Amino acid sequence: MRGPPTWLAIFISARRILRYTRSCIAIGKLIKSTKSLLIIMAPTRVSEDDVAHTSANLGNGSHHIENVQLEEHKKTDFVLKSFRAMIADLCQQFNMGHPGSAMGMAAIGVALWKHVMKYSPHSPNYFNRDRFVLSNGHACVFLYTFLHLVGYKHMTYEQLTSYHSKRWDSFAPGHPEIEHDGVEVTTGPLGQGLANAVGLAMATKHLGATYNREGFDMVDNMTWCMIGDACLQEGVGMEAIQLAGHWKLNNLCVMYDNNSITCDGSVDMCSSDDVNAKMRACGFEVFEVEHGNDNVESIVKALIAARASKDKPTFINIKTTIGYGSANAGLAGVHGAPLGKDDIIQIKRTFGLDVDQHLTVSQEVYDYFRGAVPRGKQLEKDWNSLLEKYTSTHPELSVEFKKRIAGEMTADWNELIPKKEDLPTTPTPSRKSAGAVCNPLAEKINTFMIGTADLTPSVNMAWNNKTDFQTPLLRTSCGINGAYTGRYIHWGIREHAMAAVSNGLAAFNKGTILPVTSSFFMFYLYAAPGVRMGALQGLQTIHIATHDSIGAGEDGPTHQPVELAALYRAMPNFLYIRPCDGEEVAGAFAAALRATHTPTMISVARQETVQYPLSSSRDGVQRGAYIFIDEPDAAVTLLGVGAEMVFAVDTANLLTKTYGIKTRIVSFPCQRLFEAQTPFYRHRVLGSVLRVVIEPYAVHGWERYADAGYSMHSFGHSLPRSEIYSRFEFTAEKIAQKVSGLVDEVEKNGVESLRGDFRDLNSGYKTGHEVFASAFAEYR
Amino acid sequence: MRGPPTWLAIFISARRILRYTRSCIAIGKLIKSTKSLLIIMAPTRVSEDDVAHTSANLGNGSHHIENVQLEEHKKTDFVLKSFRAMIADLCQQFNMGHPGSAMGMAAIGVALWKHVMKYSPHSPNYFNRDRFVLSNGHACVFLYTFLHLVGYKHMTYEQLTSYHSKRWDSFAPGHPEIEHDGVEVTTGPLGQGLANAVGLAMATKHLGATYNREGFDMVDNMTWCMIGDACLQEGVGMEAIQLAGHWKLNNLCVMYDNNSITCDGSVDMCSSDDVNAKMRACGFEVFEVEHGNDNVESIVKALIAARASKDKPTFINIKTTIGYGSANAGLAGVHGAPLGKDDIIQIKRTFGLDVDQHLTVSQEVYDYFRGAVPRGKQLEKDWNSLLEKYTSTHPELSVEFKKRIAGEMTADWNELIPKKEDLPTTPTPSRKSAGAVCNPLAEKINTFMIGTADLTPSVNMAWNNKTDFQTPLLRTSCGINGAYTGRYIHWGIREHAMAAVSNGLAAFNKGTILPVTSSFFMFYLYAAPGVRMGALQGLQTIHIATHDSIGAGEDGPTHQPVELAALYRAMPNFLYIRPCDGEEVAGAFAAALRATHTPTMISVARQETVQYPLSSSRDGVQRGAYIFIDEPDAAVTLLGVGAEMVFAVDTANLLTKTYGIKTRIVSFPCQRLFEAQTPFYRHRVLGSVLRVVIEPYAVHGWERYADAGYSMHSFGHSLPRSEIYSRFEFTAEKIAQKVSGLVDEVEKNGVESLRGDFRDLNSGYKTGHEVFASAFAEYR
Repeated sequence: MRGPPTWLAIFISARRILRYTRSCIAIGKLIKSTKSLLIIMAPTRVSEDDVAHTSANLGNGSHHIENVQLEEHKKTDFVLKSFRAMIADLCQQFNMGHPGSAMGMAAIGVALWKHVMKYSPHSPNYFNRDRFVLSNGHACVFLYTFLHLVGYKHMTYEQLTSYHSKRWDSFAPGHPEIEHDGVEVTTGPLGQGLANAVGLAMATKHLGATYNREGFDMVDNMTWCMIGDACLQEGVGMEAIQLAGHWKLNNLCVMYDNNSITCDGSVDMCSSDDVNAKMRACGFEVFEVEHGNDNVESIVKALIAARASKDKPTFINIKTTIGYGSANAGLAGVHGAPLGKDDIIQIKRTFGLDVDQHLTVSQEVYDYFRGAVPRGKQLEKDWNSLLEKYTSTHPELSVEFKKRIAGEMTADWNELIPKKEDLPTTPTPSRKSAGAVCNPLAEKINTFMIGTADLTPSVNMAWNNKTDFQTPLLRTSCGINGAYTGRYIHWGIREHAMAAVSNGLAAFNKGTILPVTSSFFMFYLYAAPGVRMGALQGLQTIHIATHDSIGAGEDGPTHQPVELAALYRAMPNFLYIRPCDGEEVAGAFAAALRATHTPTMISVARQETVQYPLSSSRDGVQRGAYIFIDEPDAAVTLLGVGAEMVFAVDTANLLTKTYGIKTRIVSFPCQRLFEAQTPFYRHRVLGSVLRVVIEPYAVHGWERYADAGYSMHSFGHSLPRSEIYSRFEFTAEKIAQKVSGLVDEVEKNGVESLRGDFRDLNSGYKTGHEVFASAFAEYR
Repeated sequence: MRGPPTWLAIFISARRILRYTRSCIAIGKLIKSTKSLLIIMAPTRVSEDDVAHTSANLGNGSHHIENVQLEEHKKTDFVLKSFRAMIADLCQQFNMGHPGSAMGMAAIGVALWKHVMKYSPHSPNYFNRDRFVLSNGHACVFLYTFLHLVGYKHMTYEQLTSYHSKRWDSFAPGHPEIEHDGVEVTTGPLGQGLANAVGLAMATKHLGATYNREGFDMVDNMTWCMIGDACLQEGVGMEAIQLAGHWKLNNLCVMYDNNSITCDGSVDMCSSDDVNAKMRACGFEVFEVEHGNDNVESIVKALIAARASKDKPTFINIKTTIGYGSANAGLAGVHGAPLGKDDIIQIKRTFGLDVDQHLTVSQEVYDYFRGAVPRGKQLEKDWNSLLEKYTSTHPELSVEFKKRIAGEMTADWNELIPKKEDLPTTPTPSRKSAGAVCNPLAEKINTFMIGTADLTPSVNMAWNNKTDFQTPLLRTSCGINGAYTGRYIHWGIREHAMAAVSNGLAAFNKGTILPVTSSFFMFYLYAAPGVRMGALQGLQTIHIATHDSIGAGEDGPTHQPVELAALYRAMPNFLYIRPCDGEEVAGAFAAALRATHTPTMISVARQETVQYPLSSSRDGVQRGAYIFIDEPDAAVTLLGVGAEMVFAVDTANLLTKTYGIKTRIVSFPCQRLFEAQTPFYRHRVLGSVLRVVIEPYAVHGWERYADAGYSMHSFGHSLPRSEIYSRFEFTAEKIAQKVSGLVDEVEKNGVESLRGDFRDLNSGYKTGHEVFASAFAEYR
C-alpha cells in the first residue's frame, strides 16, 4: 500500500477538501489538459492504487484517507465476473429480463458505486447526493444489483431476486421506478432519463447558485447518466443534449454504453453518426474509454475528469461488449432475453466460478463494497455539519434553504393568487389571465421555475424583472442574458425536452422546484411522452397550454388541437383543466398547486373570452364542475367548457327568450376533479334533465355526462379567430336550434330514451376525406 | 447576351443533357472539389450570366439553351425588392401573418424557382418533379407568392391576396396544406416537414433504384427542404437528419434559413450548437452561403452543388436577415406580426418602390419568371417522351411502373390476406397474426415499405428474403446490409421520425408507396405528432402497434398504454383497430387497405390470444363492431375488445352457468368504423339491454356505447403477463360478480335508470397517489 503523493497530501491539508472536490482534481486536470477528445487506453499510466486513493478521496468526496481500502486488480476482476454471472442468473430465473447491457456495463458500475459516486445507502435521499439516472432503463437489473451490493436496505437479497417474479410488491420491477430508494427517476421510454438527468443537473446548478456561499457549497452534486444507443437516436435525447451543452451543465456526465448493438442488429444498420463529433458540436467535452469491459481504472479516471469539468457537460464514450462473457456476447440476441442454461454454465466455467451455484453473492463481493455505507454516512454527516455552520453564518438564507429542502414554499400561494375583485371584467384572453395569475406567484415564490418553448410573446408567462436561467458566461446577440440563479427558462423549440427535463427539475427533491412549462396546446402532443412520465411519477408540474381549441384560428388545422384533450383527460393521475375566465384560471392554478403529486395542464385560449364574475368560481374549479347558472325548472342543462362557455351562455339566453326553453348551465373545467366528488354532489350538479355539452373538440369522453354533444368531427380550418367558430357552425343560433329540437324529442319520448343513444348535434361537417365513406360503402 | 462557353456547348451536344443533370455539373464539381465546408462569398468568381446559363441548362434540367433569358443583376434586385414589399403588404392587409422569414428568404426563392428547381406550374403533379418542402411552414406566404409568380394556375392574384382573409376556400391558408397545388406536404408543426422531406427523398431513391435502367433515369428528382432554426432543435428533425445521413440521401438538400432569430429573441438564447459540425457529424455535406439576402448567384451555385452531391445529403447554411428591409430587420418582432404601415412605407421608399402602391406585382416581375411555365412544360414533355421509350425498351417493367404511378397495386391484396381456414386455431399472440397477414402482402406487393423502430424480433413484420432499404455502400458489422431497392426499413429507435418520414413516403405520389410502421403501442405516443399529420393529410399509412394494453406485462407501467387509445380513437380521419384474433387481424388489414385516404393503427397484443373461428369475422371488423355471440333473451351485452375478448367470453359463460344470466357478446374492434354504420345496424348490434364494456384502458369514450365499464383507473404495474390481469382484477370471476350485481339493479330499476350514470365496475384500484384525494378533501 502506497500513500498518496506528497504534493497531493500537502495540497489537501492546506484547504478543506470538500470545497475542492470539483475543481482541484489533479488527475482530472492532467487528463483535461491534453485535448478535447481523450482516448484513455489500457494499460493506463496510473496504477490502480493511485486511482483508489484519488477517487476515494476526491471523487466521492470522502476525506478519510486512512479508511481507504485498496483493492488488488484480481479482486476487482472477481467482482466483475461474479456480478455478470449474477445478472445472467437473475434473468434466467424467471426466463425474462435484459441481461446484455447490464453485463456489459459491470465495470462502469464498479467505477461509479465503488469509487466515484457520492451517495449514502442508509440515507438514500440525503440532499446533496450525486444523482444517478439509468436512461437505458431496461438494464434495471444492473442498478438493482449494485443497490443490493452497496447496502441499500430495501434491496434485500429477496427483493433483488424477485426481479421478474410474480411478486407484485417487488422493488425490482422491469424498469426502474422512482418510488424505490436509489432510483432518482422512473425510466424506460428511451431518451426520457437523459432529459431527466439534464433537469437534475439544472436543479443543482440553480440551487447551488442560489444558496451556495463562500465556503459553503451546499449543493454541488454531480448527475451521472447512463445511456445506450437509443438515447442518442431519440429526438428527446438530442433536444436535451443541446440544452445541456447550451447551459454548460458541467455537473452532468453522460456515460455512453457503446456496445454497438440494438435489437435489430448492429447499430450501424440504422446510425452512421460520428457520435463524438456530434456531442462536441453540441457543447460537450468528450472522453473515450476503449476497454470498458474490464478496465475500471480508465473509467474511474474519466469519471473523475468529468467531475472536474469546468464549463462543459461531459460525455464518456465507453466501448463495451453487450452480454460480456456470454457465448453470444456482442450480438443482438443477448439484449432482451435470458441467455439459456448452457450459456450460463459456459460463462461460469470461463469465469472460474462454481457452475452449480446460482444467484450467489460471495462474501468477497460484499466485502469489496463494504466501504459504501460508512462512507455514505460520513458524507451525510459532513454535509449536515456544513449545514449547521451555514445556519449560523447565513441565518436568513438557511431558513429559506431548509424550507426548500422540506419542499415548502416561502410564501403562501393562496395569498398571491389575485382575488376575484382584482380580475378584469371585460373580455380578456384566458392566456392573459394565466399570466396575471402566474406572474405574481413566479415573482414572489422562488420554488417556481417557469419556461416556454420559444413562445414568450404568446404565453404571457414572463414576469417583470425575471432573470433567465442561463450560464453567466452567455453573451447573446440580442443582449438578453441570465444567470444560474434565474428561474425563467428558454427551452427553445423543444417541447418534448421541456416536459422531460422539467420532470428532472421536479424530481431533484420533491417540492423544492415546481416547474411550469408553456407552449401552444397542440404542441403538448410533442411533449406528451414527457408529460405522461410526470403523471406516472407523481411529479408536480404545471403545463400552461395556450391557443387551445379551434380558436387558435389562422394557423389552421395543424395548430388546432381538436382531439388532444381526450388523451389528457384519459391520462391517470393528471388534471386537464379548461377554465372559462380569469376567475376559473385562478381556480385552475389553485387546483394545480394543491395537487402536490399530480401534474396539471391549464388549457387556455388565444382569443378574448367573456368574463363571468357573477357565475364563475375558483372553488367550483376545485370540484371539477359546478352550477354556473341555475334554473330550477330547466328543460335542459348545457355543459359549458373553457373558451366556449360563451356559446353555452348565449345559447341559454336564446333558448329561454326565443324558444321558451328554460336552461341551466354547468361549468365543467375538469373531468378528473369532478370524478373525485361525492355521487350526491355529482348528481346535484348534473341534474336529471337533458344535458348537452358544447365544446369544439372530439366529444370523446363527454358521453359520460351528457346525452348529446355539440362538437367537432373533423380537423379544423385556417380562418381568422373571428370566423373559425361560425365556419363549424358554432353560433348560439345554430346550437339553440339543434338543442331545441332535441328538447322537443325528449318531451315526447322522455329523457331516458336517450340512454345509449348519444346524439351528435353538429355532425354535418365531417372530414374532407369523403373517400372514406365510399371505401366502406359495401359495408353499410 | 453571351452564349454558353464553347466547352460546355460541345459537352452538351455530345450527350443527352437529361442523363447528366445530376452527375456532370461542372460548377458543382468545381465547388465540391475544394473542401467539405465551402464558404461561397460574394462577389463570386462566376458572373451572373454564367450562372444563368449553367443553372437554366443543368440545374433545372432544361436543354433549350436558346430559350434561356439572361437577367441583369438589377432585374434580380428589383424582383427581390418587389417580392419583399409584396410579403410585407400581404401580412399587413389583414393585420396577420409571418413576414419575417418570407422576406429574409427571398433570394433563396429566386434561386430555386427561377434557376434550379425542376417543376411544371401547369402540371403540378408531373411525376419526376423536384419536391419542395417548406418545413418552416409559418413562412407559407413565401411559397404562395412564388407559386403565383411562376404561374401556378390555382394561385391567382385573388387567391394570393386572400392570405389570412375570411375566405374559407382560400388556397393560401396560415400554413401550407397538401390539398393545394405546389404544396407537397402540409407543414407547420416544426420538424415535421424536414422529416417528410427525408421520406420524399427516400421515395425517389427507392423508385429510382427499382425502375431506372441504363439510359432511363425515370425517377431522379431532388427534394429541396427549407428549414428554420426550429427544425434543427425539434427532436423529430434531428432524428430525420440522422436517417438521411445514414442512408446517404444525396438527392436531399436541406436549406437552412439561418437568420439567428426565434420568437424569444436571438437563437443563441437557447442554442449554442455548432450547427455545421453537427450536420457533418450526421453525414451531411455542408455548404455555407454568407450573403443569403441578395446574392442569388451564391445560392444557385450551392444548390447546383447540392444536386451534384454524389453520396451525401447536403446542408446549405444560408445567412439571412429576418424581415430584410424592415426597420426592425434582424429582430424577433418581425417574425410573426405585420410590420406596420409606417415600416412598409419606409421599406418601399428605401427600395425605390412606389409607397402608394400596395399588393402590386409589376409586369417586370412577372416577366422575370415567365420562363417557368414553358420550361416546366418541356420538362414534362421530355419525361413523357422518355417514358414512351422506356415503355418500348422495358415493356414489362413499364407496366408495373405505370401502375405504381397510377397508385395501383401490382396484385390484389384481398387474395393475399390468408383465408380464415388457413389461420391458426390455437392461442396465438395477435402480433404474430399481424405478421402472418402482413408478410405475404409485403412480399408480393412492392407498394409496401415496412419498417420498425428497432423491434424486428418483437413485431413480426420482417418477411422471408426481405431486402433492407439501405445505401448499397453500407457494410454493417453484423453483416446485414441492403440496397435502395429494399423495402424493409430499420428506423432505429426513432418512433417520431418513423411516422413523420413515412408521411413523406406516402406523399411522394399518393398510392405509389404504402408505408407500414411498427413499434410497441406505448411508443406511438412518441410518434403521435407524425401520425396526426398523416391523418390530417389523408395519407394512407398503416401503423402496427404491438404490446398493447396492460398485457405488455413485465415491462411495467412505462410500457403499458392505458390511456393512449383515447387519443387515437378521438383523432379525426383515423382508424384505431383492436382485433381480438387472427381473423379480426385479417379484417383490420382489409380495412386499412380499403381506407386509401386514412391512416390506420392496428393494435395487437404481445401475449397469446384465444382464437374464435366460430365467432370472429373479418367482415365484422369493416363494420367496426358486430354480434360475436348472440343470445336473443340476453339480460346483458358484453362489449369485448382486442386481446381481452377472452374476458368477455369467459365472463359470459360464467354469467350464464353460475348466475343464470343470459349474455350476448359484441366484438368492438373499431369505434370509427362503427360510427360509419347506419343507425339501424348500430342499434341492432348494440341491442337494448344493459351493456358493459371490458377493456383494461381508461374507459374514456366507451360511455357512448356502454352503461358500465370494467376498465383501468390507474397506470399499470410491472408483473409477468400471466399475473398482470389478475393484479387489476381482470378475471372472469370478478367481472361476472360485478356485472351480475348491475344486472340485478337493472332488473329492479330498469336499464333507463342508468342514463347519465355511467358505472365504473372496477374502480377499486386507483392510482397510487392517494395524496391527491386528501389534497382536495375540503372540496368533497
